[in-house]
Amino acid sequence: MNEVTKTFSRYLVNAKAGDLPEAVRKEAVRSFFNWLGCAVGGSVHETVDRALSALRPFAGPQQATLLGRGERIDILNAALLNGISSHVFDFDDTHLKTIIHPAGPVASAILALSEYRKVSGADFLHAFVLGVEVECRIGNAVYPAHYDIGWHITGTAGVFGAAAAVGKILGLDEQKMTWALGIAGTQSSGFREMFGTMCKSFHPGRAAQNGLSAALLAQKGFTSSDRVLEAPRGFAHVMSTERDFGEIVDGLGERFEIALNTYKPFACGIVIHPAIDGCIQLRNEHGLKAGDIEKIELDVHPLVLELTGKKTPQRGLEGKFSVYHSAAVAVIHGAAGEEEYSDASVRDPDVVSLRDRVTATANPDIREDEVVVRIMMKSGQVLTRHVEHAIGSLERPMSDADLEQKFRRLATGVIGAPATDRLVSVARGIESLADVSEIARAGAGHARGDADAE
Amino acid sequence: MNEVTKTFSRYLVNAKAGDLPEAVRKEAVRSFFNWLGCAVGGSVHETVDRALSALRPFAGPQQATLLGRGERIDILNAALLNGISSHVFDFDDTHLKTIIHPAGPVASAILALSEYRKVSGADFLHAFVLGVEVECRIGNAVYPAHYDIGWHITGTAGVFGAAAAVGKILGLDEQKMTWALGIAGTQSSGFREMFGTMCKSFHPGRAAQNGLSAALLAQKGFTSSDRVLEAPRGFAHVMSTERDFGEIVDGLGERFEIALNTYKPFACGIVIHPAIDGCIQLRNEHGLKAGDIEKIELDVHPLVLELTGKKTPQRGLEGKFSVYHSAAVAVIHGAAGEEEYSDASVRDPDVVSLRDRVTATANPDIREDEVVVRIMMKSGQVLTRHVEHAIGSLERPMSDADLEQKFRRLATGVIGAPATDRLVSVARGIESLADVSEIARAGAGHARGDADAE
Repeated sequence: MNEVTKTFSRYLVNAKAGDLPEAVRKEAVRSFFNWLGCAVGGSVHETVDRALSALRPFAGPQQATLLGRGERIDILNAALLNGISSHVFDFDDTHLKTIIHPAGPVASAILALSEYRKVSGADFLHAFVLGVEVECRIGNAVYPAHYDIGWHITGTAGVFGAAAAVGKILGLDEQKMTWALGIAGTQSSGFREMFGTMCKSFHPGRAAQNGLSAALLAQKGFTSSDRVLEAPRGFAHVMSTERDFGEIVDGLGERFEIALNTYKPFACGIVIHPAIDGCIQLRNEHGLKAGDIEKIELDVHPLVLELTGKKTPQRGLEGKFSVYHSAAVAVIHGAAGEEEYSDASVRDPDVVSLRDRVTATANPDIREDEVVVRIMMKSGQVLTRHVEHAIGSLERPMSDADLEQKFRRLATGVIGAPATDRLVSVARGIESLADVSEIARAGAGHARGDADAE
Repeated sequence: MNEVTKTFSRYLVNAKAGDLPEAVRKEAVRSFFNWLGCAVGGSVHETVDRALSALRPFAGPQQATLLGRGERIDILNAALLNGISSHVFDFDDTHLKTIIHPAGPVASAILALSEYRKVSGADFLHAFVLGVEVECRIGNAVYPAHYDIGWHITGTAGVFGAAAAVGKILGLDEQKMTWALGIAGTQSSGFREMFGTMCKSFHPGRAAQNGLSAALLAQKGFTSSDRVLEAPRGFAHVMSTERDFGEIVDGLGERFEIALNTYKPFACGIVIHPAIDGCIQLRNEHGLKAGDIEKIELDVHPLVLELTGKKTPQRGLEGKFSVYHSAAVAVIHGAAGEEEYSDASVRDPDVVSLRDRVTATANPDIREDEVVVRIMMKSGQVLTRHVEHAIGSLERPMSDADLEQKFRRLATGVIGAPATDRLVSVARGIESLADVSEIARAGAGHARGDADAE
């Protein structure tokens, strides 16, 4: 197919904020809000500490906020570091068709830019929607072959999304938007081999930073190919064994991928969410206590055991890959947030004891967002819950109230309750903001007293 | 094969500068010297101007020299911009086995670092040799399949070389060297689709910058996979259809890839060099004039048409990908330097007219450094030249005097003759320098009077 990249660019350049359907605007606010909470929550993770300590000696002017940290840095490094923060808990949004986490690369880039160049809430949301559209459509065009090869699609597709969103805010013309996509695409990278290491969250961070720099370079006339997506030696041929360019160019402006975005209620791989959901439901309805439970049986989709079959996790990060640990904390704490995946939590004797009484059976008739939970009480009573669609799925989305509760849990421990109140309020009202940088500044919270911050 | 990456890291960490053979040290000086001339010569190209104007507002402290420009910038941006400068003329070194241009990613990274952390000439050259070893061995392991897919191997392999060289200078231990290679590898990128655009020289620049930051991140404990090269979802499987890990781990410390490095006499892709060489030989021997020529026929290696088959280049950069333009300027000007690849040159009516009378035929029996040139004169005379090995090949290498002449042609127009004299002298003596940053400072030349430089 010819002119795939140019067709995409033409659409991006001509798209009007006023043409966004109401439902799409609403979902964009929810996606951005969820991202912001994750970024503030993840900002004090050692992954961010180490990246910042390595890069700060070479960083530029204090132009943009490091969310949750009360210090400032140049916009390119802010895009990188906020992108890392937002993905480090694996708690951000998911475009289920491609397993892309769409907000990270795009929001990290344009929020940083908004502190360098004034952007209204309406323009920001529009650019955000378009950036998500670009990365998800490119993902649709090559998924699953591209992912199966071993590419971390959030990084590889995300860099295009960041460039498109920044390019829209910069007002690039069609040629420069095309170059921006090209400069972004020729930096597309990130291996799935890195999962379980700090490089996993580095991928969306670098995608944000590289996409931002791609659009800035294009703005100054830095040239690239006009056919990065479709050329025989371009993205879709080089980085995938299969491709469908119709996914990129068909129905532009008619359907929006952000409408298919989902948000995680639990801080772990999405395949364990049904089991956690079922356990929490039974716990809350019956006031369960771990000591009264004989055993827990789960009927799960086969992928659950393949991806999260770790029987005896030793560290918090490993707990995220254990359906047994996850079911245990769901019953004991009624939650599966970051605290339930701490090192202390996986070593808690009560959790370990209950975890050892959990069994899971793969059943190919169970869908990915489905589970059957059976809890055998010592009393002989058997409690059963069949979850058809887990909370957080497209069929049972998190409500705005759920998202706000998640946000507060993530942010309060980092920036405190008053700053969290203010941030919730300003982020919820993004559509009417004259200057989006207000959100970034509110997201800084108080300074952490980092001695070498300045 | 297991432990490919760790075996490589162990070798890099334990290698001693004193163990380098004399011939390897000598070739390292030649490689670095050739790179330096190219970087100074390319520093005023608009590709560098545009990149610098886009990125300077976000850059860090004035830590390192932009060669040829008399202004300073943070070391990460210096690595990027000097890397672009050094490749923008396509005039740098070539490892013929892989078509990698080895010096760009490696030298750009460690010369910038040498202005932040004192490095002796001996240690610098050792790190340079090791960085080149890393990128070329990784290249050997996946070439030609990796290149055939569409990857620009100088960028994809170069990022590993930069990380390894920087890691050696930083004194990383085996674990951190392994992480550095992993963080570098997961940024490996660059499409051949970008050839003929500013992104081509962006690739080695970004490889230098990303490799440098990978080693800096690893130094601070930023983790990656320990198996970036060999894992099923790592570099060699994801980015190539074939691989031979023996090329990476066999004979480490016994043979050195830099001994196979070559230098270009002409400012274009090396596959056209035999044709240019043959045309210049016939021109000089027969005092040829374009107007007396009926047509020119070339029997060339098939890659010549695949890579440089552009019939009607419109811009200087495109001329480098046109065997037709190259043969025409070789006959008309007896040279193929930067001037012959200017926009003016590709539009010169005399050049265009002769170019249109050049035909090239792919012949699988012709080697890559071989050509048969037949020039049919209007008089009916036919002049033939069979070049067995083009000038600049391993069999007919450029002499030290040739390299110095090339260096002076590149540098004098940018920094003037006195500064060039001084730079030649200090670079030639790199082995005995206590502090390599002396070369970087000498390479600054005089300030260009760029108004917004400071």
